[in-house]
Parts: sequence; structure tokens; C-alpha cells
Amino acid sequence: MKQELMACHERIKPYIHNTPIMESGHIENFLGSDLYFKCENFQRAGAFKMRGAINSVLQLSDEQREKGVITHSSGNFAQALALACRYLNVKCYVVMPHDAPAVKRNAVMVYGGDIHECSPTMESRERVSKQIMDETGATFIHPSNDMNVILGQGTAAMEFLEDHPDLDVIITPVGGGGLIAGTSLAAKHFGKEGIVVIGGEPLEADDAFRSLASGHIEGNLTINTIADGLRTQLGDITFPIIKDNVESIVRVRENEIISAMRVIWERMKIIVEPSSAVALAVLIKERPQFSGKKVGIILTGGNVDLDNLPFD
Amino acid sequence: MKQELMACHERIKPYIHNTPIMESGHIENFLGSDLYFKCENFQRAGAFKMRGAINSVLQLSDEQREKGVITHSSGNFAQALALACRYLNVKCYVVMPHDAPAVKRNAVMVYGGDIHECSPTMESRERVSKQIMDETGATFIHPSNDMNVILGQGTAAMEFLEDHPDLDVIITPVGGGGLIAGTSLAAKHFGKEGIVVIGGEPLEADDAFRSLASGHIEGNLTINTIADGLRTQLGDITFPIIKDNVESIVRVRENEIISAMRVIWERMKIIVEPSSAVALAVLIKERPQFSGKKVGIILTGGNVDLDNLPFD
Repeated sequence: MKQELMACHERIKPYIHNTPIMESGHIENFLGSDLYFKCENFQRAGAFKMRGAINSVLQLSDEQREKGVITHSSGNFAQALALACRYLNVKCYVVMPHDAPAVKRNAVMVYGGDIHECSPTMESRERVSKQIMDETGATFIHPSNDMNVILGQGTAAMEFLEDHPDLDVIITPVGGGGLIAGTSLAAKHFGKEGIVVIGGEPLEADDAFRSLASGHIEGNLTINTIADGLRTQLGDITFPIIKDNVESIVRVRENEIISAMRVIWERMKIIVEPSSAVALAVLIKERPQFSGKKVGIILTGGNVDLDNLPFD
Repeated sequence: MKQELMACHERIKPYIHNTPIMESGHIENFLGSDLYFKCENFQRAGAFKMRGAINSVLQLSDEQREKGVITHSSGNFAQALALACRYLNVKCYVVMPHDAPAVKRNAVMVYGGDIHECSPTMESRERVSKQIMDETGATFIHPSNDMNVILGQGTAAMEFLEDHPDLDVIITPVGGGGLIAGTSLAAKHFGKEGIVVIGGEPLEADDAFRSLASGHIEGNLTINTIADGLRTQLGDITFPIIKDNVESIVRVRENEIISAMRVIWERMKIIVEPSSAVALAVLIKERPQFSGKKVGIILTGGNVDLDNLPFD
């Protein structure tokens, strides 16, 4: 897998930012860890998703490229795929529920994505997607459960470890699992002996935690979380990688997510979305476990709706 | 003045961040300029004020240091001076109106500043300050109208020009004038032939614009602006420097400030305070004038009250 990751990074490099790594003396002092933040909120299209999206499109055959791609994310992956397709001059269809927030629709449209509306049910989403695929021959790209996507997402941790090869721990949020699966592969092949990858998950969308506990893929019981990027669930490609390579999943409450988000905004002066703050929330919650360790946190994205912020 | 600036930079270097310079493809494409942002919102204490504050304290005699310093800013300078004093183990008195927002009081207290309350009038502020100075022998440090402060603030532009010596224009906000005075001196001595420094000012606090027009220091007629760092006015040290070295002052409306702030938050994913956004508001307003030019903007600070944001 080491070769695949390296090839993937070479392939996508011209299209992504090697995002900056920030530190915060304040947060470090408060937590007692040696702490680094990989700022994927500064990534193109505002999130790490750009890495997996561009890798997927670059891996298509000429014939596939000609017919375009399709996805049914309403979040950061749709934006990233639309932008990736714009770079490579590929048609991008996005199936989105008609009640998706205007801010998300606009973001996809800005990058030239072709939005098709569906009802807000999985059945409608799949039916509309299938119809477009039948008509156009477009290739479906899943936002997380796809090996090309997973490898792409893993390049964030590769860059992280290139600059800080001695990280003891990397913490990422867990939604569909593409990022943490890729991160765990990168840590295994490019991290030091004994490096550990930990996932953070909202208690309100804890499918990954329960999947690791039961040993098979569990669905979410609720998705009542502000971390809108983490409402999805693991798939048959992400789950086995996570099971084999991730140390543990820590669940955090909604108020812990919001308060970690606030710490990042106030102390680091950068904008991260709620899903991003979940990793720091884990560190704050389990502070003693990380004391004296060199910890890397992947700040996954910065796409927030400024008209709907969770601060009082 | 070149020697003084260089000596100042050497002196303060151990205490400040050489802040990163960011770019934004989105904003560049929109404006048609080659655009760079010096991110003083990532400076210690959250604003460029740290530069002038630490320089002032470092220039005190041993006897002065022993007796402490005093200022009557309720904004970023008070925080910066308190932090500078903590680094150098000097007592810091801050006179602040009793109705100053809790968030500002807390920020000064966090850095160990000794807050003394006054009534929200200039007379009360000066009376309380004088009383403390009489009792303690503390040295008064003005937030802007002080040559050590001006030199310190000028080091942001020095660093900017070190990385981008070919800037055609630097734009900064104007409040008390310490930053733009220092910037104009730095541009003169370290910028290329013909570099121009332009100030941005809220229409609602346009003392600098009117002072340059009349040729002598004018007060503000209103200070009804969201850019709370720019409600102050020029002094007898800042004004002559600005008169001699600044090309022009451009005034912007409140809605232009808020919309520039929103562009920075949404597109650059960083937190800047309203005063910081004034410089970009100038660029947006006077777009054609800057077309094809290499423009540097100093983003002055990132201290906002997240509970009171100006977005709808």
C-alpha cells in the first residue's frame, strides 16, 4: 500500500495544496501535549475531500472521463468533486435533496457541478442517480467507500508525517471513514514505530464506535449532530481498514464539539466547521491519555454557514 | 529611519511571530490584482499591536521597568501591552471604562494586566491614569502616538517586503495611525521605487481623511463604526509621518466593511476583526485602480466577540 499512497500523492500534487501545519501555544499549555494541526480547512474547496475527489477523477479511463462522474453527497465531497472535474474538464453530476441548504447548492454550482434534485430519502437519491447513470453513462464515485478516495485522503497524513515524522498519535474525525482509513494506512507506512491513529465521532452518530465494538458494520441510530460531515456511515471498504489499523474511536457530546470549535476559532483565529472540531474535542476529553505526547490533529474543513453559527 | 527600523526588528524578533503571508485565488480572480495578505491576526495577542507594545517596553530604562507601564486603551493595544509586560516581567496598569465589554476585560486579565476602572469619558480616563502614574511612577505608553510604537508596527511591513520586495501597493487600516505611519516608513526604506501606501478608514470615523484634506489634525465627527479598532484619531507624531508618506486615505461604508470581512472569513477561512477588513474593502471599492498591480494587505487582527458577529 506504501507504493499506492506515494503514487497517489505524486498524481494529485499539482491539484492540491500542501496545507500548512499550525501550532497553538495556548491550547498546548492547556492540554499538556505537543500539538500540531494539519489545516485542511485551507485545502481547495475548503476541505480534505479535494484529495480523494481529484484522485478518483484522475484514475478514470479516457472513455469514463468523457461520460462524466456522479455523486450524491450534499456536503464537502460534492464541492470537491465539482472542482476536481472543473480542473480536468469532466462533467460532474450531483444528486442533492431538494431541501438541501442553499449555501451547499451554491457551493457546488460555483464550481460548475450539475445539480439534480431528488427527495430527501435514500430511495429517491438512488433512483435519480441511477436514472442519470443510465442516461449518461457517468461513473458513480462514492464520497468515502472507494479505494481511490481513501488513498487520496491518506495523503494529508503523509504530508503531516513528512514534516513531523515523530508524531505519537494522529486524531481525525470519522464520518464515512475515508479519511481515517487513509490516515491509518499512511501512519502504518510513513509513521514511526508505535504510532497510533484515533478517531473522533459524535455520540449522536456513533456508527464507527459501535461497528468496532460489534465487529460488523452498524448503522447510525441518530444523526442529530451539528457535525454534519459525520452523519454518514462506514462501508465495506473503509470498515476492514479501520478495524485493522485504528486504535480506537472516542465519542464526544454536542457541547464538547461546539466548545472545541470555539477554542479553535478564538485561539487559532481560523475557521473550522463543527466536524473538524471533533478531533480536538477528543483530545480535550481524554486529556491525560495524551499528556506529554506529540499529537497531530487533522482539521478537516472550514465550510460553515456564517448565518448559522452555534455560538450563543 | 532605516537603521531604527532594523534595530527595532532585531530587538522585538524574539517576542513576536513572523506571521504567515496568505493568498486567495478566489479573491485574486475576482479583483484582478496579484494579492497578498500579511496575517497579523495570527500575531501574539491576536493583533499587530504586539509589535509596538513590546518595542516600547523593551526601550524602557531599568528604573522605568521597575515602576511599570500604563495605558488607557480598551482594545488590542491593552492586551498586547499586558502580554509584552508579562514576557518582560513588568507591571502593566490598564485604565478601562467600567462599561467595557467583559470579553475585552477578560483578555487583558488573562495576560496579567492590572485593570483600573474609570467612567467612559476622556476626562475620567485621564484623571484615573494620572492618579496611578502619580502613585506608582508608571510610564504612560500611548497606543499609537509614540515613536517606539510606530517603529514596532512598521516591522510588519518590513517582513512583508522581505518576502515580497516588489509590492506596488500596501494597504492598511487607519485608526490612531501607528500602523500606517510605521508601514509608510518601512515602505520608503525597504520597498521598491514608487511603492505606494494607502490607508483605509471607515466613513464613520474619517479623521485621517479629513486631516490630510485640511492639513491639520481633525477629530472624528462620529465613531459609529463596527471597526472598533479605528475609532481613535491621529496624533502629533503619527500625523506628520502620514502626511509625508501616505499616498491617500480611502473611506468605506459599514456595509462594505462587513462584506469584505465576510469574504475573508468565507474564502480564506481565517478570522479577522472588522477593522482588519477595511483594507480589503478599499481594494474592492477602488478595484480598477489596483488592476494588474501587486498589492499587499495587512490583516491587522483577529480579536472578535463570537457572540456578537455582524453576519445576518
